[in-house]
Amino acid sequence: MAKDESAIGRESNGSDPRLSRASVGRFSLYLRHLETILRDGTTKVSSGQLGKALGITDAQVRKDLAYLGSLGHPGVGYITEELITAIRHLLGVDRPWSVALVGVGNLGRALLGYRGFAERGFRVVALFDTDPAKVGTRVEGLTIHGADEIERVVPATGAELGLLAVPSEAAQVAADALVAAGIRGLLNFAPVRVRVPPEVRLVAVDLTIQLEQLAFLVQAHNSYGIDY
Amino acid sequence: MAKDESAIGRESNGSDPRLSRASVGRFSLYLRHLETILRDGTTKVSSGQLGKALGITDAQVRKDLAYLGSLGHPGVGYITEELITAIRHLLGVDRPWSVALVGVGNLGRALLGYRGFAERGFRVVALFDTDPAKVGTRVEGLTIHGADEIERVVPATGAELGLLAVPSEAAQVAADALVAAGIRGLLNFAPVRVRVPPEVRLVAVDLTIQLEQLAFLVQAHNSYGIDY
Repeated sequence: MAKDESAIGRESNGSDPRLSRASVGRFSLYLRHLETILRDGTTKVSSGQLGKALGITDAQVRKDLAYLGSLGHPGVGYITEELITAIRHLLGVDRPWSVALVGVGNLGRALLGYRGFAERGFRVVALFDTDPAKVGTRVEGLTIHGADEIERVVPATGAELGLLAVPSEAAQVAADALVAAGIRGLLNFAPVRVRVPPEVRLVAVDLTIQLEQLAFLVQAHNSYGIDY
Repeated sequence: MAKDESAIGRESNGSDPRLSRASVGRFSLYLRHLETILRDGTTKVSSGQLGKALGITDAQVRKDLAYLGSLGHPGVGYITEELITAIRHLLGVDRPWSVALVGVGNLGRALLGYRGFAERGFRVVALFDTDPAKVGTRVEGLTIHGADEIERVVPATGAELGLLAVPSEAAQVAADALVAAGIRGLLNFAPVRVRVPPEVRLVAVDLTIQLEQLAFLVQAHNSYGIDY
């Protein structure tokens, strides 16, 4: 499995100056919380308050936020809006991203209608499917193209990211076509490993792992009284 | 946000003898890889081989596997089948789990058809929706019940886990009904925080976070040549 292909956070080894995958994940959580409290009128926040709200230690929060530069104000804490701006910039979501979606089945349609994507600046600009009955029809204002048109259509749309919402057996072919079309990152929902060249980023979403984690938590609670 | 409500792994604080969320996530990855190599006829494996295949340090793999007890055989490594059995037991997936699904829209149907769930022993046994046009119809051999029947129907099905695939504004009401029906764990796909009592486990799947992580990886690669 490629290093990029984990659906879950990775821990930093401590000596690595880069952000760990787990840290990057926490920045997404900080951002959501900060946006919520700013809407509620909270213009200043401390690392302790942030940590308490998210179940993360104060020390971890301070370590993470230090990565953004010297944003803390002595005696004040952090200015909510400054943190939001800095985290959006760090994550790369201070600008819109265009996305190509391959596979317009139930999952593809669910992703197309997923409100969170648009709110965060992710805009689906091209749809592809192999089903001749779907090709040429329109969904959410977009025409579904044949999967054999990926290489031709994607470059014209400016899409940089690809969503793979196809059955397992179609995933590698679709990934190859998106890569050939110049896509820079792939989010793979198919429950199978796909290979991409080193210059393309890959994040795999394994929904079974999430359910497995839940089963473990329930079992640990039932059997040992351990709560995570 | 409740401690359980992270879609990503958490790091252990080092002094905690419990498994970290990140460790539990790695066990899911180990399990998938071990099942794959066993199918290919690999009956023995070392921690180094496992780590290399998954992009995890040898030391981390050995630390994780030690949690399973003394399974290593000197000069041999691990017996693939023994590891698989132990990890399935640890995760609680050595037995079937019955699941109630609330929200039979595109996402709900995608989850219902998600092959990985059944392969891992997760069986959807009850469907609920608020749409009168859907209630009473059948999908994949199951009748869709009204959401107001959750408390009456769920206990009879033996479902222990609940999948929330409803719009944000319906999520808390559906969660409350599932909890009242005796559900022990909830997997929430709605892009909103839901509250559950302390005896109920909660895992939130935020699909936007996955896309945000991908955007970060692509940006880091483009801007700084940093690969994660």
